[in-house]
Amino acid sequence: MRELLVIGIGAGDPDQVTVQAIKAMNRADTFFVIGKGDEKQSLVDLRTGILAEHVRGEYTVVDITDPPRDRTPDDYEGVVEDWHERRAAKFEAEFASEPGVGAILVWGDPSLYDSTLRIVERVLARGNVSFDYSVIPGITSVQSLAAQHRMVLNRIGEPIHITTGRRLADGLPDGVDNAVVMLDAHCTFTQVTEDDAEIWWGAYLGTPDEVLISGRLREVEDRIVTERAELRTRHGWIMDTYLIRR
Amino acid sequence: MRELLVIGIGAGDPDQVTVQAIKAMNRADTFFVIGKGDEKQSLVDLRTGILAEHVRGEYTVVDITDPPRDRTPDDYEGVVEDWHERRAAKFEAEFASEPGVGAILVWGDPSLYDSTLRIVERVLARGNVSFDYSVIPGITSVQSLAAQHRMVLNRIGEPIHITTGRRLADGLPDGVDNAVVMLDAHCTFTQVTEDDAEIWWGAYLGTPDEVLISGRLREVEDRIVTERAELRTRHGWIMDTYLIRR
Repeated sequence: MRELLVIGIGAGDPDQVTVQAIKAMNRADTFFVIGKGDEKQSLVDLRTGILAEHVRGEYTVVDITDPPRDRTPDDYEGVVEDWHERRAAKFEAEFASEPGVGAILVWGDPSLYDSTLRIVERVLARGNVSFDYSVIPGITSVQSLAAQHRMVLNRIGEPIHITTGRRLADGLPDGVDNAVVMLDAHCTFTQVTEDDAEIWWGAYLGTPDEVLISGRLREVEDRIVTERAELRTRHGWIMDTYLIRR
Repeated sequence: MRELLVIGIGAGDPDQVTVQAIKAMNRADTFFVIGKGDEKQSLVDLRTGILAEHVRGEYTVVDITDPPRDRTPDDYEGVVEDWHERRAAKFEAEFASEPGVGAILVWGDPSLYDSTLRIVERVLARGNVSFDYSVIPGITSVQSLAAQHRMVLNRIGEPIHITTGRRLADGLPDGVDNAVVMLDAHCTFTQVTEDDAEIWWGAYLGTPDEVLISGRLREVEDRIVTERAELRTRHGWIMDTYLIRR
């Protein structure tokens, strides 16, 4: 039975990799990099650095370019569904043509807002290649955010709600006053109306380019919006996340 | 300025420790173990094993026994508040008497349902000792649960809600149909009424005693209740967590 390892490698800092991930990487013959084809050189360099630092011996890296997808569709779920199927077919073809143990490296943790495991399940369901797979957890940008701000995500006895910019725009559920927001390209925090809200924001977490801003939302929101735009222009991309508490 | 490191060491598997945590552990002169004084030998052994495996050189381990607290109080927040103050005083005294770099090891991640950072902030606020501190994130039992069940915590585009057994008993917020539950000593999942709900449960995650059960809630809930009681009797303690999806 062929083997596939889905390995979380943390938010960007090579030191955030676990021993379990290092052992798994050293068992892999081929690393499949599933990306949009427009991956920024700094991310490629970060991943190359992680492999160079932690893996001994020979390995192959296979780039799998994502089919494009509509980022602002009317039928969000349908578009994502079709995109996953095309991703699965591409991965299946590459995986079938490479012998030995395969690995997919995932930024953060494969269990959090990542589609790799859905692709893997889909490839298995297609039934053209058969393999066993296992998952190695990794430190997420949410955890990096909390650690760098030295804070606890939950208030005492309260839940933690992790959501998307899209969902925050629709409003948080009743009783949820404390949310971690990921995948927010539109600075949705500016739409939060409570004047006593606080925010803890971070970009490029775990990397040398990391930027942190925190404070009362009304006092720092303009600074985050401006800084975010400048950083995005300077680096050509941005990944950021934040905790908002009202 | 004295230095304190708050280090997440994962859910129990020594391989789940990050390189960052290992480097931090190797900078520490003294490890402060804050516990209830009734810590189970298997947990002490796990932590001793993590130190033995990853730390070179000499170090001291100082046990700080928690003051007791009422586990079923009427005034939940008041009791927790008082308990934190007494913990802070105990830690302050021990930290002041040990020279060099101090470290506190935290199971999982200091940012998730853990009181260590609140104690540290409280000690700083008391103003009797002055120090700088940093936080190193660790793999949580939630991430171990997801990895072992090889699942993604969120459904596509949906939020992730992490909550407590106490809160689940009060019902999930409207629009939240997918929740990770921690700190549930009372098998609150049996109170979830939706017949199509599914559960992914795990105990002693990351340790050699790990047990996993998943399936339709109505079909597996009795088995989880029975197994949980048996495991608790056999080991003398239990730590478990689950994802429930309705």
